[in-house]
Amino acid sequence: MTVEERRQQLIGVALELFARRSPDEVSIDEIASAAGISRPLVYHYFPGKLSLYEAALKRAAEDLADRFREPHEGPLGARLLRVMRRYFDFVDDHGPGFSALMRGGPAVGSSTANALIDSVRQAAYVQILSHLRIEEPPARLELVVRSWISLAESTALLWLDGRRVPRAELEVQLVQDFAALVAVAAAHDGPTAALLKPLLRDEPGDGPFADLVTRLVSLAA
Amino acid sequence: MTVEERRQQLIGVALELFARRSPDEVSIDEIASAAGISRPLVYHYFPGKLSLYEAALKRAAEDLADRFREPHEGPLGARLLRVMRRYFDFVDDHGPGFSALMRGGPAVGSSTANALIDSVRQAAYVQILSHLRIEEPPARLELVVRSWISLAESTALLWLDGRRVPRAELEVQLVQDFAALVAVAAAHDGPTAALLKPLLRDEPGDGPFADLVTRLVSLAA
Repeated sequence: MTVEERRQQLIGVALELFARRSPDEVSIDEIASAAGISRPLVYHYFPGKLSLYEAALKRAAEDLADRFREPHEGPLGARLLRVMRRYFDFVDDHGPGFSALMRGGPAVGSSTANALIDSVRQAAYVQILSHLRIEEPPARLELVVRSWISLAESTALLWLDGRRVPRAELEVQLVQDFAALVAVAAAHDGPTAALLKPLLRDEPGDGPFADLVTRLVSLAA
Repeated sequence: MTVEERRQQLIGVALELFARRSPDEVSIDEIASAAGISRPLVYHYFPGKLSLYEAALKRAAEDLADRFREPHEGPLGARLLRVMRRYFDFVDDHGPGFSALMRGGPAVGSSTANALIDSVRQAAYVQILSHLRIEEPPARLELVVRSWISLAESTALLWLDGRRVPRAELEVQLVQDFAALVAVAAAHDGPTAALLKPLLRDEPGDGPFADLVTRLVSLAA
């Protein structure tokens, strides 16, 4: 293997271990053993556990950011639902690693880790704005999009702790939460309402947004 | 001053400095000078900056948790709005210290800091459940209450970065966000809906929940 191939192999092995146990609990010895190489050789490719952890984090962050990319075709609700499915696939696949990172894992507080987490949030934000066809959002809309991204993060983290709600239902609920939070902001802010109204015209009767309205009307009755 | 009085004074001085600049940027020298004592004397009361920071954090966490306490009287929406006002008073008063803590300040990753942050979240959660008169919430309701708490945190943090939206409007919006997120959960979950319906009967026509419904109906028209 070339140096780069070996590094990529070790990152892959580390991510697999972090998906089953918190990075705090995974030793360099285990990573070496799972990769079939000696401990000193791991240190040849990564000077310490933090650097391997950060490299793994970088690959995971790129993977996660990729999942927000969605073609600009079809109704918005359905697009967001596909993104949520890929997001929960990631969370499901990386459970302990994802939790450790967001709750304060080995690299938290390191500027590399914080920058990577922020880059994923920013990728999600930019993608959502592009689907809303908005370049310069009003302050309130920026706030609602960014705070919904953090709601999706915290919902995923809480879900991982026990998985007591079927994830498919949470995926739909998060899409509907987005609509609900945007509706609250639009109810207070003319510019936000004006930007969003045209987007809703294309929503089909069987999409997640219409489903929410139907459910709420039936709940109120 | 007694040892305890001096410790409390230093904590107060530190919190005032952290309210204007990030704890990372505040030196022990500055804290000593603001308290009118020598640097070595500060170390007599706190072995290092981390221990002073953690003590300040503890006092701030207790202060914040206290603000969630609200008498069990009157409509729910108005109670939650009073809590949100006190919450934003705190955020407003502790700006840089609050941001540093939540974004990864000096003590992040320290188990003391994480435990204090979790204790505040837990205090908020317990208070909200008691106002909803629910002891054992269904999984979905627990998720929605906890994820709304994190939404309130992230909204406050985003607001601090530029303060581009009047905070009074965000306080109302967060109360309405709570209603909206609970409504989405109730729309999917019979037990959640059954628990919440009786609570809404006492909401007056001029409360924040009714205001949201009025605004949404007018927006849809």
